[in-house]
Order: sequence, then structure tokens, then C-alpha cells
Amino acid sequence: MSNVLQPKVVIVIFGATGDLAKRKLFPSIYRLYQNGKLSKNFAVVGLARRGWTDDVLRENVAKSIGDAISPNEDLEEFISHFYYQSFDVTDESSYSGLNILINDLEGTYQTEGNRVFYLAMAPEFFGTIANKLQENGLKDSEGWSRLVIEKPFGRDLESAKKLNKELRAAFDEKQIYRIDHYLGKEMVQNIEVIRFANGIFEHLWNNRFISNIQITSSETLGVEERARYYDHSGAARDMVQNHMLQMVALLAMEPPISLTTEEIRSEKIKVLRALRNMDSDKVSQYFVRGQYDSGEIKGEAVSAYRDEADELADSNTETFVAGKLLIDNYRWSGVPIYIRTGKHMAEKSTKIVIEFKDIPMNLYYKRDKDKRPNLLSINIQPNQGITLCLNAQKSGSGSLAQPIQLAYNHNAVSGINTPEAYEKLLYDCMIGDATNFTHWDEVALSWKFVDTILDVWSKNEANFPNYKSGSMGPDAANELLEKDGFHWWDI
Amino acid sequence: MSNVLQPKVVIVIFGATGDLAKRKLFPSIYRLYQNGKLSKNFAVVGLARRGWTDDVLRENVAKSIGDAISPNEDLEEFISHFYYQSFDVTDESSYSGLNILINDLEGTYQTEGNRVFYLAMAPEFFGTIANKLQENGLKDSEGWSRLVIEKPFGRDLESAKKLNKELRAAFDEKQIYRIDHYLGKEMVQNIEVIRFANGIFEHLWNNRFISNIQITSSETLGVEERARYYDHSGAARDMVQNHMLQMVALLAMEPPISLTTEEIRSEKIKVLRALRNMDSDKVSQYFVRGQYDSGEIKGEAVSAYRDEADELADSNTETFVAGKLLIDNYRWSGVPIYIRTGKHMAEKSTKIVIEFKDIPMNLYYKRDKDKRPNLLSINIQPNQGITLCLNAQKSGSGSLAQPIQLAYNHNAVSGINTPEAYEKLLYDCMIGDATNFTHWDEVALSWKFVDTILDVWSKNEANFPNYKSGSMGPDAANELLEKDGFHWWDI
Repeated sequence: MSNVLQPKVVIVIFGATGDLAKRKLFPSIYRLYQNGKLSKNFAVVGLARRGWTDDVLRENVAKSIGDAISPNEDLEEFISHFYYQSFDVTDESSYSGLNILINDLEGTYQTEGNRVFYLAMAPEFFGTIANKLQENGLKDSEGWSRLVIEKPFGRDLESAKKLNKELRAAFDEKQIYRIDHYLGKEMVQNIEVIRFANGIFEHLWNNRFISNIQITSSETLGVEERARYYDHSGAARDMVQNHMLQMVALLAMEPPISLTTEEIRSEKIKVLRALRNMDSDKVSQYFVRGQYDSGEIKGEAVSAYRDEADELADSNTETFVAGKLLIDNYRWSGVPIYIRTGKHMAEKSTKIVIEFKDIPMNLYYKRDKDKRPNLLSINIQPNQGITLCLNAQKSGSGSLAQPIQLAYNHNAVSGINTPEAYEKLLYDCMIGDATNFTHWDEVALSWKFVDTILDVWSKNEANFPNYKSGSMGPDAANELLEKDGFHWWDI
Repeated sequence: MSNVLQPKVVIVIFGATGDLAKRKLFPSIYRLYQNGKLSKNFAVVGLARRGWTDDVLRENVAKSIGDAISPNEDLEEFISHFYYQSFDVTDESSYSGLNILINDLEGTYQTEGNRVFYLAMAPEFFGTIANKLQENGLKDSEGWSRLVIEKPFGRDLESAKKLNKELRAAFDEKQIYRIDHYLGKEMVQNIEVIRFANGIFEHLWNNRFISNIQITSSETLGVEERARYYDHSGAARDMVQNHMLQMVALLAMEPPISLTTEEIRSEKIKVLRALRNMDSDKVSQYFVRGQYDSGEIKGEAVSAYRDEADELADSNTETFVAGKLLIDNYRWSGVPIYIRTGKHMAEKSTKIVIEFKDIPMNLYYKRDKDKRPNLLSINIQPNQGITLCLNAQKSGSGSLAQPIQLAYNHNAVSGINTPEAYEKLLYDCMIGDATNFTHWDEVALSWKFVDTILDVWSKNEANFPNYKSGSMGPDAANELLEKDGFHWWDI
């Protein structure tokens, strides 16, 4: 542990009474503390409208940690670092009060003027907060100041540009940490490592050996209490523009010349630049939208999206997207990357399947239809690991080959101490490593790509609902692959 | 089962009272019968010197099956197919008696004149038996006749040629099935399948991507009651000339144009032709011999080879061989294939490790010495399966990569019904598939290679004993790799 960086910092959480703070941020900060990744020189300031006190916040922090993990005896000491201030984001006096509190805590905890401002709240005030922090001198410490932004980052390219302009009026690009929590997941971070730390894969990682790539992120949940937010957003904005395209970029990027933030981001941006943009009249050939009907998930009857809340009765919002992406560069030309994501699907799972081309002459299969290509599967959640499907001879199968699976179970190795995405990202932010945060150029290119699709969809009423809850999406999502001679792998 | 070939056959076992018949042949025939690979149209004739009766043989067969597997109720019916004849291999009347018996059984069991003559006995009579079978008309049936020969096939190229000439005076090459029981092992047969039925490996299977190959076949047993035979033979004759070189041929062969016996054998022969033959003065650079001293194996004290029997007191026989082989062809030029085999070693294990070259620039290791190359391991016995060692990021390891293992356990899949090597080979012989038997050209080329080594060794007294029982052989076996910058993988 001796060579682990232990940042000294005041963390300011906007939205400290909210769900994200409770479920993710408090437990993550505690685990960093427990694992020696945070010195005793830290303080957390919780901000929200409600009239809580330090003690109420501390009770809530203790409870949220108890719900998430089993804390040990130093929990008392830990929560004593937490402070609460009732806060109105539009009121100047809130900011001057915050300034006094932070300065005070910096004295108490010797945090050297380092500040993280974490915006864990509704996006409409992101711009306001950033600017008022600047205007009220909250960035004027001797240490560094960083701004952490939760999604959504705009709802299209134009609104994202506007938001970015507001943020950039107060913070530099280098100070802005746009969270994409998928980038904090261990197996998403492992995409790079698998590709660039192994002798065998990178040679095969191109259009000569790969026939197609499939990325699935399916949920069994519906919109629950997020109905209003979700209906304003939809699956393309909520999942494709950020998480799905980030995974595409990691899978398709060229090897960076070094592992610095700049080099890795610059390679990812190159991929997003090479994404084939569609003409509006081609969107329907490449993208499929869906909205769930009623159905059954794991034996339980569930209702249709339009029946989830009164305001959804006529909703045209997609809860499912499947798409075929093409990357027009030397490495990937001709290799489709299929993505799909949705709610109320048969299983909760995020995984990537790389389908390799068959060898020129496979003598071990008598019939073409029995052939099974090699598949590399990167399992992101809930199971974490890697499986490789090969062909081998099994007992009694004569001289014919059959599929076998080589498996690595990441869960089993790392045990219960697998750091959560937020824990990793929060730590990265505090040590100033922005590699796993989204650069503005990535946000802009992703919106540009998604805007084309959303624009077409907004002009045509969808034939919703078009998939049963508990299924893997509408038939059209299967046909998307079938017309290319492929099918979704289910492994 | 309906499309499984069920050969009709009389199997004649020379040496029916011996160890091989008891431990391998009887249980194998029973399992073929149980698994529907043998019709009711079969009979087995046991031959040996002893004055057994049919009933004594049948009791012995039942007992040997009971020792090996748990038989079910049709055992009685099964053993009724067994017949015994007391036999003197040099006596004409034994052969005429056998002829009458076989003709009789062919009537009873409707076996259509198909005959397997299995020589499960000392090799000095192989030539005599083959010729007397021929002279006494035992091959003159309406069906086919095949001769199965156990190792050793000669003790050098010259004696092997002489034996082959004797056999060929009576049987065609196509009728001779030279057993190498390693070729009956599932995972040895899988070498071909792994290479030629998978999209990813064959592209990597050459000197651009593979740095070296390591084949280990280690035993914990010593010579036991085989002292006299073994001392006459030694590890090079007992293991290298046949099993080890056969595995080399399977690993290094070019893809055959089809899976016929002729095509596969012809590719294997090409590999053996490309093996770099050493000048006598180079042998010591490429090959290491060893003989075990006393030591400890799994907590038990064991004695030195020279103390195992009186006649071994001054023995110069090697119980261990390690070697570096080079295949001088386009695919393998510059890739050493290291082999090692021995007795009284630390573990019983047969496995092949393919070590891949590292990628040009591995950013995920700070220090060269931490780097771990990708390894494909084909585990042949006692564990059967495939493991692939890759690098990935583990929890808490920062951005550095660490080795992980993807594993396929063949045992677990095939369960207790994994056919034994002998079962597979016996069946292959009966259906006329000679692919997994050794062609004369393979035998000759292997002896030619091994003769050079044995010749040098026979002229120089070895400094024996030179490795402790329970170790992995003499130090020189490690130095063989170290001077090339490699080391034996132990996974």
C-alpha cells in the first residue's frame, strides 16, 4: 500500500440527499478510505435543499454504507469527516457560506486546497452551479479544483454544446470530469488490457479475422420511478450516445503510443470520427427502435411501457435500440458492430462478443450449419470475466469437432472486494487521471451520430409497442443481423 | 447409435495371460461392446503358453473388467464370446489348431472372416508369429486380416528395419497397425482439432507468433518390475522415439488437404523429415540425459535407479531425456521445440505448452521481468483440457496487467465415460482407420533421429546419477532453455 497515492481533498457533493449519493458515492468514499486510498486529510461537504444537519447527513451516510457493505469499527471516525449545508443553487449566499465552510475544513483537515465539486443532481443547473462556483471564488484555492458531471450531458448536440460552453466559461476542459460509469467497470477497462497486453489477440483484431462484433446491454427493469425523466430521454440518449459508443471506441481503437489520458482519448476520438454517419433515409436500414409491451419476466407479469404511468399513455419514446455500426477505416472496413440495449428484456446482462471468421477450410464439420465460429466474449455484468469458444473433439463424437468453452471468472478471483465503478472513477478524479472520463470531443461526436437517428425517429410515429416484455427485443433487431448472415450469440 | 459402425470380427490376442491384456484390452473390448461399437458378431481368442481353459480365461476377463470399471448384467453374455487356446508361438500345430478354432467361431458368430491379430507380448517373436500366421493360412479368410503390434518396434533403425522386413513378408503395410497408445489419448487427438477447426489458432501457429513449444511427459513411477526390459531400453527408446516425436509431428504438421489416413500421415512424415539432424559433436548441445538418484516423491523416500535391482548397479541407462528440436521449414524455422520426459519426477503429467511471442510494445508492464507471455497449454494427462494464459487487469492492480487463466476441463465434460486410448485404437483398427497408428516411414525417421543421440551416448559413460528423485530432472535440462532465454513453464 505504501506506494498508493493518497489524495488530500475536500469533496463537495451537490445533491447529497439524493439517490446517487446514497447508493454510490457514500459507499465508494468509504471503501476508498478503508482500502487506504484516501488519507485522513479529507472532508466531504453534502449540499441539498433540505434542512439537514451534519448529524442527519452522517446518520444517512452510515446507513447507506451499512446497506451497501459491512462497515467496521472505524465508521464513526469516517463519518465525522462529513458536513452538511442547506443549499440553494441559485442563491449567492449559499455559495459564500460554502466558501467559508470549505476554507474552514481545509484548515482542519489540511487538504492543501484540493477540491472536487461533484454534481450529483438534475442537469438543468449544471451551468449555473459551475459559473457561480467561479464567480464566488470557490475555485481560487492553492490546490486544484475539479468538476465532476453526471449524465445526461445534453439531449442532443446543440444542447450539449450549450452546456459545455457554460461549463467552459468557468472550468477548463482539463478540470471537467464527465462521468460515464461504464468506464469505471473493471471489465470495460479490461477491454484495452485484453487487446494490448496480450501477444495473441491484437494480431487477430481486424477485418481479416473478425467477422462481426456484438455488444448487448440488456436490463430486466422497466422505468420504475424514473418514468418522467426516461420518457424525455429514451434508450438512444440514455444508453447509446454514451455507454454503448464508449465500448465501441474501446473495442475499435488503434493501439495508443502510451497509456496517458491524451493518447488514449485521442485514439478513441479517431474511432468516433470514423463512425459511418447515415443519411436520414438510411437510418431505418441500420437502426431499430422498440418499446416494450406487457409480458412476463422471470415468471412475473409486467405491464407495457405505456401503462407504467399516466403521462406515458401515448409515448413514442424508445425503450430499446438495436443498431449496426460501421467504422470506415483500414482496420475495420467491412466489419459490422451490432449493438442492442433495452429495458424489460429477458435477462440483465452486459457483454461483448467478438465473432471470428472461420478458417479457410474447416475439415472438422461435415455440414456448414454445424460450424461454430470462435467467439471471444467479454462479460461485463452481472458476471464478470472472459470466455473463449473454441472447437475441439469430445468423447464419442467421432472425428467431428464440437464447441467447448474456456472460461475465466473475474468475480471468483477478485472476490467481494471488486471496486465499484464509482469508487474507481472517484479515485481517478482525485488523482487527476481523466482517462476513464469522457472528453468533450467524444461527447460531441457521439451526439452527432445519435442526432441523425433521433431526428428521423422524431419525425415518424413508431409502431409501438413492438416487443414483449421478457423477450430480447423486436423481431427487426434479429433481422438486422440475419440480412448480413449473422445472428445474435447467446452465450 | 444407428449410424455407428459395428465391426464383425474375431480378435486373436497373443499374450492373453499378460498384463496388457488384463489391464487394457479386456476392459476396452467390454466398453466397446457396452457402448454399441461392437455387434454380437464377435469372438475373442486368447493365446498364451499357460494351460488355461475357456472358463479360466473368462473368469480372468470378468475380473479384469471388474477391476477397471463397474460392469452391468450383460457381462455373462459378453465373456461367453471368449475362448482360450494354449499356444506355443514356434510350434506349427498351435497355428493349425488356431485355424480350426477361428473357422469354427466364424461359423458360430458370423464374423464374415474378419480377423485382428493382436501381439500383446514380447517383441522377439513378432516376426515369427507374422510369418507363421501367413504360412498356416490364417490370413486366408474371406474378410480382412489386420496385425496389431505393440511397442517397442525395434531398438534402433537397423533392428526396426529387420523387424519390418519380417512383418512385411507376411502382411502389407496397410494391414499393419503399429500401436502408439499416446495417439489414442483424447487430448493428443485434439491437437489436430484445436489447430485445424478453430479460426484463431492456425493464423498464429508459426514462427512469427510462437516463441517456443515445450512438451513434458513426466512420471513419478520408477522402473518397478520392468527393470530388465527398461534397462535394455531407456527413456529415449521408451518415450522419445515414439510418443514424444509423435506429439511433435502433430503440433508442427501443415494442414492436411483432407482428414484421410494418407493425408495426415504424409504431413506428419514431412515434419519428421524436416527435423534437424545433429552431427555427433553437437548432440550434447541439444540433448541432456539423466538417471535418477534417491530422493523423495510426495513425501515418500525412494531409491536410486542403480539400487532398484542388482543388475542395474552399474547401469548407464538414461531414465530422463530433455532435448531441443528444430524443424527446418518455412513455418518453424527458429522456433525451438523442447521436450523432456523421465521417471521418478516430481509429478505425473503430460502437457504441451505453446509460448507465444509478446506483442511489439506491451505498455501494461512497467518492468520487463514482470511480463508474462501468452501460453496455450494442452493438458493430456492426468488432467485433460486446455488452458490459455492471458494478461488482464485484476482488482486493485492499478493499470498494470496480471496473468489470468482461461480454462477448459475436458474431464469434467466427458465424465467417467471418457474412452481410454486402447478402446479408441482397437475400434479404429477394427473399422480400418489407421490414422492414429504409426506408419513405417514415421518409425524409420524417428529412429534415424534418435539413433544419432543414442550412438553418442553409448560411446560416453554418463555421470549418473544426476538428478534427485522427485525433482524435474538434472540442472542441465533447465540450462538447455536458459541459454535460449526461456524456461520451463510450470502451470
